[in-house]
Amino acid sequence: MPIALIAHGGAGNWRPGSETDAVEGLRDAVSRGRAVLRAGGSALDAVCATVVALEDNPNYNAGTGACLNFDGFCELDASVMESRDSRVGSVAALQRVKNPILVARKVMEETDHVMLAGEGARRFARVMGFPDHDPITPARRKDWEEKRGQLDEVLGKRGLKMRRFLQQHPEYSGGTVGAAAVDVNGVLAAATSTGGVTLKLVGRVGDSPLAGAGNYASRSVAASATGTGEFVIRSLSARALSELVERGATLANAMSDVMGRLKRDYDADVGIIAVDSAGTPLALHLTRDMPHAFFAGEGEIVARIRV
Amino acid sequence: MPIALIAHGGAGNWRPGSETDAVEGLRDAVSRGRAVLRAGGSALDAVCATVVALEDNPNYNAGTGACLNFDGFCELDASVMESRDSRVGSVAALQRVKNPILVARKVMEETDHVMLAGEGARRFARVMGFPDHDPITPARRKDWEEKRGQLDEVLGKRGLKMRRFLQQHPEYSGGTVGAAAVDVNGVLAAATSTGGVTLKLVGRVGDSPLAGAGNYASRSVAASATGTGEFVIRSLSARALSELVERGATLANAMSDVMGRLKRDYDADVGIIAVDSAGTPLALHLTRDMPHAFFAGEGEIVARIRV
Repeated sequence: MPIALIAHGGAGNWRPGSETDAVEGLRDAVSRGRAVLRAGGSALDAVCATVVALEDNPNYNAGTGACLNFDGFCELDASVMESRDSRVGSVAALQRVKNPILVARKVMEETDHVMLAGEGARRFARVMGFPDHDPITPARRKDWEEKRGQLDEVLGKRGLKMRRFLQQHPEYSGGTVGAAAVDVNGVLAAATSTGGVTLKLVGRVGDSPLAGAGNYASRSVAASATGTGEFVIRSLSARALSELVERGATLANAMSDVMGRLKRDYDADVGIIAVDSAGTPLALHLTRDMPHAFFAGEGEIVARIRV
Repeated sequence: MPIALIAHGGAGNWRPGSETDAVEGLRDAVSRGRAVLRAGGSALDAVCATVVALEDNPNYNAGTGACLNFDGFCELDASVMESRDSRVGSVAALQRVKNPILVARKVMEETDHVMLAGEGARRFARVMGFPDHDPITPARRKDWEEKRGQLDEVLGKRGLKMRRFLQQHPEYSGGTVGAAAVDVNGVLAAATSTGGVTLKLVGRVGDSPLAGAGNYASRSVAASATGTGEFVIRSLSARALSELVERGATLANAMSDVMGRLKRDYDADVGIIAVDSAGTPLALHLTRDMPHAFFAGEGEIVARIRV
């Protein structure tokens, strides 16, 4: 069976000077997932190894280096899914852990549940042995202080609807990480992790922890999405991709179709990566940038800032 | 355009003597939704009116009368979706409100977000003017005390995996409520609300607040699922139903297909209700009971304990 893995570091506009770090971080993360797959390991282990590396890299909006919510602290969303048995594990609005993707995996493996949120998710993480960890970096804190100040001025009475303002500042969003892989046994898996969007309302849950929206693995496709999650939830993008492939579309055509609808219906600032059961890795994004890296079979790793 | 609405009160085994109340509560709730639709109101207003009536009825596991989690308090999940623009609003693990379905609708209407969870969802509810409300009823508290005591004995070292025990006690689960409707303008909407499963881990999120899993509305089908939500999430049951209808299946065939897979893959204790754009209401369940009621066009309300 062909093996393959692809990972992304978030759709958006990356700041000038930050592109190289973003691309090289993905190359390194994919090399870890590749090592797992080449040693005969599972797609699930491979995407988790990849996403852990990205969570631990402060240049992405996931784990350490996650963005801050409206109140100035991090709430992390993550999920894993495996095609075998359609197993899913998920955490949402989880505070103070280093690797939310590993907590999501524990939900899948150690409980009868699929998803835990908020304070209950944090308690579960502690019971499972994940120590307290503050994901906030000085750079993210500084960014939040600046933007929060601007937001107070700009928003005025506009209150809770701040998307237009945030979209005019695309560097505010982006940085979600994700990976999709197929292993030597033909099992597919996907993993996605994020801090969400800067200045989000406390408790906001995006697409990353929702199976079928920002993360999905079927027998035909594993996929991870990024960008403004609300559009991805409403269109169930990752599941839609799988449906099209199961009905006979090529992965490339299915991705064009799904992204085309997101552009037409919402003018959405999103991107998606996927791998199919034949071992084809593919990326597509509507934003200017979406750093990503991939490999297939015996091939080398390709890493780049945009398609 | 044909109008129609269908509602359920949860898949499971209803206790002897409780069937009549369950069925009559649904008849009353559907009559409220029917009044909205017959006055030319929206499907969204109709499903919300129906679900509010069910949340306020202590005989169902939603709003007042919701079941208690492992620690002995209520965490409520709810979501609404409208086919027009695929709008979604959702709350998860929300404490101390009377009508979580109305908070979910506020998330959709008043924020840029789709989903809020945990303490952030409660804060949002207060900002929106929803007062503090303890949904615990004496009957639910008594039930919890009895079952929690048994659970401690039975579980022993089995720890977090308690599904087998709970499935041997089917009266523990069930009681989720939901409604699906199509209005005079051909717009479809679905609403689902639940207290989840008794003795769930704190923070557990089920299928009810997840678009595509336990609640979904497309141009062709609006649907609400009930039963052990983990299976519904993994199979994305409500979305799968919509896909089949969009590919040309009748609603009846699509529902049989989706429920057949849930039976085959998971032996799942679930049920689903749906209405299609032609105004056909339909219910199907794998459990013994699923109280539900429906009407279509000028017809009377049919209310019953099982299909």
